[in-house]
Amino acid sequence: IRFYLHDQFTGSNRTSAVVLPPLNNETLFGQVAIIDDKLTKESPINSKLVGRAKGFLVLDSLSSSSFLQSMTVELEGRKGTIVFHGQNPFTESQREIAIVGGTGEFRNVQGYALTSSVGSEP
Amino acid sequence: IRFYLHDQFTGSNRTSAVVLPPLNNETLFGQVAIIDDKLTKESPINSKLVGRAKGFLVLDSLSSSSFLQSMTVELEGRKGTIVFHGQNPFTESQREIAIVGGTGEFRNVQGYALTSSVGSEP
Amino acid sequence: IRFYLHDQFTGSNRTSAVVLPPLNNETLFGQVAIIDDKLTKESPINSKLVGRAKGFLVLDSLSSSSFLQSMTVELEGRKGTIVFHGQNPFTESQREIAIVGGTGEFRNVQGYALTSSVGSEP
Repeated sequence: IRFYLHDQFTGSNRTSAVVLPPLNNETLFGQVAIIDDKLTKESPINSKLVGRAKGFLVLDSLSSSSFLQSMTVELEGRKGTIVFHGQNPFTESQREIAIVGGTGEFRNVQGYALTSSVGSEP
Repeated sequence: IRFYLHDQFTGSNRTSAVVLPPLNNETLFGQVAIIDDKLTKESPINSKLVGRAKGFLVLDSLSSSSFLQSMTVELEGRKGTIVFHGQNPFTESQREIAIVGGTGEFRNVQGYALTSSVGSEP
Repeated sequence: IRFYLHDQFTGSNRTSAVVLPPLNNETLFGQVAIIDDKLTKESPINSKLVGRAKGFLVLDSLSSSSFLQSMTVELEGRKGTIVFHGQNPFTESQREIAIVGGTGEFRNVQGYALTSSVGSEP
Protein backbone atom coordinates (compact mmCIF):
# COMPACT_ATOMS: atom_id res chain seq x y z
CA ILE A 1 0.00 0.00 0.00
CA ARG A 2 1.37 3.35 -1.02
CA PHE A 3 -0.06 6.78 -0.42
CA TYR A 4 0.93 10.41 -0.10
CA LEU A 5 0.21 12.23 3.13
CA HIS A 6 -0.47 15.97 3.00
CA ASP A 7 0.21 17.77 6.23
CA GLN A 8 -1.37 21.17 5.61
CA PHE A 9 -0.38 23.26 8.59
CA THR A 10 -0.94 26.67 7.02
CA GLY A 11 -3.58 28.25 4.82
CA SER A 12 -7.33 28.12 4.81
CA ASN A 13 -7.62 24.34 4.44
CA ARG A 14 -5.41 23.41 7.34
CA THR A 15 -5.56 19.75 8.32
CA SER A 16 -3.18 20.00 11.26
CA ALA A 17 -2.89 22.36 14.18
CA VAL A 18 -0.15 23.07 16.68
CA VAL A 19 -1.72 22.65 20.13
CA LEU A 20 1.45 23.15 22.17
CA PRO A 21 4.26 25.50 21.10
CA PRO A 22 7.91 24.49 20.70
CA LEU A 23 10.39 25.19 23.49
CA ASN A 24 13.25 25.93 21.12
CA ASN A 25 13.46 27.18 17.54
CA GLU A 26 16.09 24.78 16.25
CA THR A 27 14.50 21.37 16.68
CA LEU A 28 11.04 22.52 17.85
CA PHE A 29 11.38 20.23 20.90
CA GLY A 30 8.19 20.38 22.92
CA GLN A 31 5.78 21.12 20.10
CA VAL A 32 2.65 19.00 19.79
CA ALA A 33 0.38 18.99 16.74
CA ILE A 34 -2.86 17.18 15.99
CA ILE A 35 -3.51 16.02 12.42
CA ASP A 36 -6.38 14.88 10.22
CA ASP A 37 -4.37 14.75 7.00
CA LYS A 38 -5.46 13.81 3.51
CA LEU A 39 -3.92 10.78 1.85
CA THR A 40 -3.81 10.82 -1.94
CA LYS A 41 -2.99 8.25 -4.59
CA GLU A 42 -0.32 10.37 -6.25
CA SER A 43 1.92 13.15 -5.05
CA PRO A 44 -0.19 16.20 -6.06
CA ILE A 45 -2.70 17.15 -3.41
CA ASN A 46 -5.48 17.34 -5.98
CA SER A 47 -4.92 13.74 -7.04
CA LYS A 48 -7.42 11.08 -5.98
CA LEU A 49 -8.17 11.09 -2.23
CA VAL A 50 -7.59 7.58 -0.88
CA GLY A 51 -7.88 8.09 2.87
CA ARG A 52 -7.15 10.08 6.00
CA ALA A 53 -4.44 9.91 8.67
CA LYS A 54 -5.63 11.04 12.11
CA GLY A 55 -3.55 11.43 15.21
CA PHE A 56 -0.78 13.54 16.66
CA LEU A 57 2.89 14.48 16.40
CA VAL A 58 5.19 15.10 19.38
CA LEU A 59 8.44 16.93 18.58
CA ASP A 60 10.75 15.07 20.95
CA SER A 61 14.31 15.63 19.84
CA LEU A 62 16.84 18.06 21.30
CA SER A 63 19.47 17.38 18.63
CA SER A 64 17.68 16.78 15.33
CA SER A 65 14.38 17.17 13.53
CA SER A 66 12.18 14.31 14.61
CA PHE A 67 8.75 13.60 15.99
CA LEU A 68 6.90 10.70 17.51
CA GLN A 69 4.08 10.13 15.02
CA SER A 70 1.00 8.41 16.36
CA MET A 71 -1.84 8.06 13.90
CA THR A 72 -4.48 5.78 12.52
CA VAL A 73 -4.91 5.46 8.77
CA GLU A 74 -8.21 4.71 7.10
CA LEU A 75 -8.35 3.93 3.39
CA GLU A 76 -11.23 4.36 0.95
CA GLY A 77 -12.92 1.08 0.20
CA ARG A 78 -11.27 -0.72 3.11
CA LYS A 79 -12.84 -1.36 6.47
CA GLY A 80 -10.85 -0.58 9.56
CA THR A 81 -7.70 1.29 10.43
CA ILE A 82 -3.95 0.75 10.58
CA VAL A 83 -2.25 2.10 13.72
CA PHE A 84 1.16 3.76 13.24
CA HIS A 85 3.24 4.72 16.25
CA GLY A 86 6.89 5.53 15.93
CA GLN A 87 9.70 8.00 15.56
CA ASN A 88 9.90 9.93 12.30
CA PRO A 89 13.22 11.78 11.78
CA PHE A 90 11.55 13.73 9.00
CA THR A 91 14.61 15.36 7.47
CA GLU A 92 16.20 12.02 6.59
CA SER A 93 15.51 10.87 3.06
CA GLN A 94 13.87 7.60 4.02
CA ARG A 95 12.43 6.56 7.38
CA GLU A 96 10.57 3.69 8.91
CA ILE A 97 7.57 4.03 11.19
CA ALA A 98 6.36 1.11 13.27
CA ILE A 99 2.88 -0.30 12.71
CA VAL A 100 1.60 -1.50 16.06
CA GLY A 101 -1.91 -2.75 15.39
CA GLY A 102 -5.08 -2.47 13.39
CA THR A 103 -8.80 -3.00 13.22
CA GLY A 104 -11.33 -4.36 10.72
CA GLU A 105 -9.52 -5.75 7.68
CA PHE A 106 -6.27 -4.83 9.36
CA ARG A 107 -6.81 -6.70 12.62
CA ASN A 108 -3.57 -7.88 14.22
CA VAL A 109 -1.30 -6.22 11.68
CA GLN A 110 2.25 -5.56 12.80
CA GLY A 111 5.21 -4.30 10.89
CA TYR A 112 6.55 -1.07 9.59
CA ALA A 113 6.03 1.51 6.89
CA LEU A 114 8.70 3.18 4.79
CA THR A 115 8.25 6.90 4.39
CA SER A 116 10.00 9.69 2.59
CA SER A 117 9.27 13.35 2.07
CA VAL A 118 8.36 14.46 -1.42
CA GLY A 119 8.35 18.18 -0.88
CA SER A 120 6.52 21.06 0.63
CA GLU A 121 4.25 23.54 -1.08
CA PRO A 122 2.69 26.73 0.19
CA ILE B 1 -13.44 -9.96 28.86
CA ARG B 2 -16.25 -7.47 29.07
CA PHE B 3 -16.47 -4.31 31.13
CA TYR B 4 -18.15 -0.92 31.22
CA LEU B 5 -16.01 2.20 31.15
CA HIS B 6 -17.29 5.30 32.90
CA ASP B 7 -15.81 8.51 31.61
CA GLN B 8 -16.89 11.04 34.23
CA PHE B 9 -15.91 14.41 32.83
CA THR B 10 -18.23 16.53 34.94
CA GLY B 11 -19.31 16.61 38.58
CA SER B 12 -17.46 16.20 41.81
CA ASN B 13 -16.08 12.73 41.08
CA ARG B 14 -14.51 13.53 37.77
CA THR B 15 -12.21 10.83 36.43
CA SER B 16 -11.15 12.68 33.30
CA ALA B 17 -9.97 16.19 32.62
CA VAL B 18 -9.60 18.26 29.48
CA VAL B 19 -5.99 19.46 29.39
CA LEU B 20 -6.11 21.15 25.98
CA PRO B 21 -9.25 22.87 24.65
CA PRO B 22 -10.91 22.09 21.32
CA LEU B 23 -10.20 24.26 18.27
CA ASN B 24 -13.74 23.96 16.91
CA ASN B 25 -17.11 23.29 18.48
CA GLU B 26 -18.45 20.77 15.98
CA THR B 27 -15.97 17.90 16.18
CA LEU B 28 -13.85 19.22 19.08
CA PHE B 29 -10.73 18.76 16.94
CA GLY B 30 -7.67 19.64 18.99
CA GLN B 31 -9.02 18.70 22.40
CA VAL B 32 -6.90 16.47 24.63
CA ALA B 33 -8.19 14.79 27.78
CA ILE B 34 -6.49 12.59 30.37
CA ILE B 35 -8.49 9.78 31.95
CA ASP B 36 -8.38 7.49 34.97
CA ASP B 37 -11.81 5.94 34.41
CA LYS B 38 -13.65 3.30 36.42
CA LEU B 39 -14.45 -0.02 34.82
CA THR B 40 -17.47 -1.84 36.20
CA LYS B 41 -18.91 -5.32 35.74
CA GLU B 42 -22.31 -4.10 34.67
CA SER B 43 -23.59 -0.93 33.07
CA PRO B 44 -24.59 1.06 36.21
CA ILE B 45 -21.70 3.01 37.65
CA ASN B 46 -22.45 1.68 41.13
CA SER B 47 -22.10 -1.93 39.99
CA LYS B 48 -19.00 -3.89 40.98
CA LEU B 49 -15.72 -2.09 40.20
CA VAL B 50 -13.54 -4.40 38.13
CA GLY B 51 -10.68 -2.14 37.09
CA ARG B 52 -9.39 1.19 35.83
CA ALA B 53 -8.52 2.58 32.42
CA LYS B 54 -5.73 5.15 32.45
CA GLY B 55 -4.46 7.18 29.55
CA PHE B 56 -5.50 9.95 27.21
CA LEU B 57 -7.84 10.90 24.38
CA VAL B 58 -6.88 13.09 21.41
CA LEU B 59 -9.79 14.52 19.42
CA ASP B 60 -8.30 14.27 15.93
CA SER B 61 -11.12 14.48 13.43
CA LEU B 62 -12.17 17.50 11.37
CA SER B 63 -15.24 15.81 9.91
CA SER B 64 -16.71 13.52 12.55
CA SER B 65 -16.69 12.71 16.25
CA SER B 66 -13.65 10.58 16.91
CA PHE B 67 -10.63 10.39 19.15
CA LEU B 68 -7.39 8.48 19.33
CA GLN B 69 -7.76 6.54 22.57
CA SER B 70 -4.54 5.49 24.24
CA MET B 71 -4.95 3.74 27.55
CA THR B 72 -3.85 0.88 29.71
CA VAL B 73 -6.44 -1.28 31.43
CA GLU B 74 -5.86 -3.02 34.76
CA LEU B 75 -8.37 -5.53 36.06
CA GLU B 76 -9.06 -6.57 39.65
CA GLY B 77 -7.51 -9.93 40.43
CA ARG B 78 -5.32 -9.91 37.34
CA LYS B 79 -1.67 -8.92 37.22
CA GLY B 80 -0.55 -6.56 34.53
CA THR B 81 -2.12 -4.28 31.98
CA ILE B 82 -3.60 -4.38 28.50
CA VAL B 83 -2.52 -1.55 26.22
CA PHE B 84 -5.19 -0.08 23.92
CA HIS B 85 -4.23 2.40 21.23
CA GLY B 86 -6.56 3.23 18.40
CA GLN B 87 -9.19 5.40 16.83
CA ASN B 88 -12.60 5.49 18.49
CA PRO B 89 -15.33 7.09 16.34
CA PHE B 90 -17.48 7.28 19.43
CA THR B 91 -20.80 8.17 17.84
CA GLU B 92 -20.91 4.96 15.80
CA SER B 93 -22.87 2.16 17.43
CA GLN B 94 -20.02 -0.33 17.51
CA ARG B 95 -16.30 0.34 17.16
CA GLU B 96 -13.05 -1.56 17.34
CA ILE B 97 -9.97 -0.37 19.18
CA ALA B 98 -6.60 -1.95 18.57
CA ILE B 99 -4.79 -3.73 21.41
CA VAL B 100 -1.08 -3.20 20.87
CA GLY B 101 0.57 -4.90 23.82
CA GLY B 102 0.42 -5.87 27.44
CA THR B 103 2.30 -6.70 30.60
CA GLY B 104 2.11 -9.31 33.37
CA GLU B 105 -0.56 -11.89 32.55
CA PHE B 106 -1.20 -10.00 29.34
CA ARG B 107 2.36 -10.05 28.01
CA ASN B 108 2.53 -10.05 24.21
CA VAL B 109 -1.21 -9.69 23.69
CA GLN B 110 -2.31 -8.29 20.36
CA GLY B 111 -5.74 -7.92 18.88
CA TYR B 112 -8.69 -5.66 19.18
CA ALA B 113 -11.58 -4.79 21.43
CA LEU B 114 -15.18 -4.17 20.41
CA THR B 115 -16.74 -1.17 22.07
CA SER B 116 -20.12 0.49 22.06
CA SER B 117 -21.64 3.34 23.99
CA VAL B 118 -24.36 2.51 26.45
CA GLY B 119 -25.44 6.01 27.35
CA SER B 120 -24.55 9.09 29.24
CA GLU B 121 -25.77 10.19 32.61
CA PRO B 122 -25.35 13.46 34.44
CA ILE C 1 19.57 -5.35 26.54
CA ARG C 2 20.04 -3.30 29.64
CA PHE C 3 20.48 0.42 30.00
CA TYR C 4 20.01 3.26 32.45
CA LEU C 5 17.68 6.09 31.54
CA HIS C 6 18.40 9.55 32.90
CA ASP C 7 15.40 11.81 33.07
CA GLN C 8 16.96 15.21 33.76
CA PHE C 9 14.06 17.52 34.41
CA THR C 10 15.96 20.22 36.23
CA GLY C 11 19.27 22.00 35.81
CA SER C 12 21.07 23.38 32.81
CA ASN C 13 21.24 20.11 30.89
CA ARG C 14 17.56 19.28 31.03
CA THR C 15 16.49 16.46 28.74
CA SER C 16 12.82 16.60 29.59
CA ALA C 17 10.29 19.39 29.85
CA VAL C 18 6.85 19.66 31.37
CA VAL C 19 4.56 20.94 28.61
CA LEU C 20 1.29 20.71 30.54
CA PRO C 21 1.06 21.31 34.30
CA PRO C 22 -0.43 18.86 36.80
CA LEU C 23 -4.01 19.29 38.00
CA ASN C 24 -3.24 18.09 41.52
CA ASN C 25 -0.12 18.03 43.66
CA GLU C 26 -0.42 14.50 45.04
CA THR C 27 -0.31 12.31 41.95
CA LEU C 28 0.41 15.05 39.37
CA PHE C 29 -2.59 13.84 37.35
CA GLY C 30 -2.82 15.85 34.13
CA GLN C 31 0.87 16.59 33.72
CA VAL C 32 2.48 15.93 30.34
CA ALA C 33 6.23 15.93 29.75
CA ILE C 34 8.31 15.44 26.62
CA ILE C 35 11.64 13.63 26.92
CA ASP C 36 14.86 13.13 24.97
CA ASP C 37 16.68 11.25 27.72
CA LYS C 38 20.19 9.83 27.78
CA LEU C 39 20.67 6.09 28.10
CA THR C 40 23.92 4.97 29.68
CA LYS C 41 25.65 1.62 30.07
CA GLU C 42 25.97 1.91 33.83
CA SER C 43 24.07 3.77 36.49
CA PRO C 44 26.20 6.95 36.74
CA ILE C 45 25.15 9.58 34.23
CA ASN C 46 28.75 10.09 33.15
CA SER C 47 29.14 6.44 32.24
CA LYS C 48 29.21 5.44 28.57
CA LEU C 49 26.31 6.86 26.53
CA VAL C 50 24.57 4.01 24.73
CA GLY C 51 21.48 5.66 23.31
CA ARG C 52 18.55 8.02 23.66
CA ALA C 53 14.91 7.60 24.63
CA LYS C 54 12.55 10.07 22.94
CA GLY C 55 8.87 10.49 23.55
CA PHE C 56 6.44 11.66 26.18
CA LEU C 57 4.97 10.91 29.61
CA VAL C 58 1.32 11.41 30.57
CA LEU C 59 0.59 11.45 34.31
CA ASP C 60 -2.74 9.64 34.27
CA SER C 61 -3.43 8.35 37.76
CA LEU C 62 -5.72 9.87 40.36
CA SER C 63 -4.71 7.45 43.10
CA SER C 64 -1.02 6.66 42.69
CA SER C 65 2.17 7.78 41.00
CA SER C 66 2.07 6.51 37.47
CA PHE C 67 2.45 7.68 33.90
CA LEU C 68 1.79 6.37 30.45
CA GLN C 69 5.27 6.26 28.94
CA SER C 70 5.46 6.40 25.17
CA MET C 71 8.94 6.49 23.73
CA THR C 72 11.24 5.17 21.08
CA VAL C 73 14.68 3.95 22.03
CA GLU C 74 17.69 4.13 19.74
CA LEU C 75 20.93 2.42 20.67
CA GLU C 76 24.49 3.21 19.58
CA GLY C 77 25.70 0.82 16.93
CA ARG C 78 22.22 -0.53 16.22
CA LYS C 79 19.99 0.55 13.37
CA GLY C 80 16.39 1.35 14.11
CA THR C 81 14.26 1.95 17.15
CA ILE C 82 12.28 0.02 19.76
CA VAL C 83 8.84 1.45 20.55
CA PHE C 84 7.74 1.37 24.20
CA HIS C 85 4.19 2.27 25.14
CA GLY C 86 2.77 1.41 28.50
CA GLN C 87 1.94 2.31 32.06
CA ASN C 88 4.84 2.95 34.42
CA PRO C 89 3.85 3.08 38.12
CA PHE C 90 7.21 4.61 38.84
CA THR C 91 7.21 4.34 42.63
CA GLU C 92 6.96 0.54 42.56
CA SER C 93 10.29 -1.23 42.79
CA GLN C 94 9.99 -3.13 39.55
CA ARG C 95 7.65 -2.45 36.64
CA GLU C 96 7.01 -3.75 33.18
CA ILE C 97 6.46 -1.57 30.13
CA ALA C 98 5.00 -3.00 26.93
CA ILE C 99 7.06 -2.99 23.75
CA VAL C 100 4.65 -2.52 20.86
CA GLY C 101 6.82 -2.39 17.76
CA GLY C 102 10.12 -1.48 16.21
CA THR C 103 12.01 -0.49 13.10
CA GLY C 104 15.31 -1.40 11.43
CA GLU C 105 16.99 -4.24 13.32
CA PHE C 106 14.02 -4.24 15.68
CA ARG C 107 11.30 -4.67 13.07
CA ASN C 108 8.25 -6.51 14.38
CA VAL C 109 9.50 -6.77 17.95
CA GLN C 110 6.89 -7.27 20.62
CA GLY C 111 7.24 -7.94 24.29
CA TYR C 112 7.98 -6.06 27.43
CA ALA C 113 10.76 -4.42 29.35
CA LEU C 114 11.47 -4.66 33.06
CA THR C 115 12.30 -1.36 34.69
CA SER C 116 13.23 -0.17 38.12
CA SER C 117 14.34 3.14 39.56
CA VAL C 118 17.89 3.42 40.75
CA GLY C 119 17.71 6.81 42.35
CA SER C 120 17.52 10.49 41.77
CA GLU C 121 20.29 13.03 41.87
CA PRO C 122 20.17 16.80 41.72
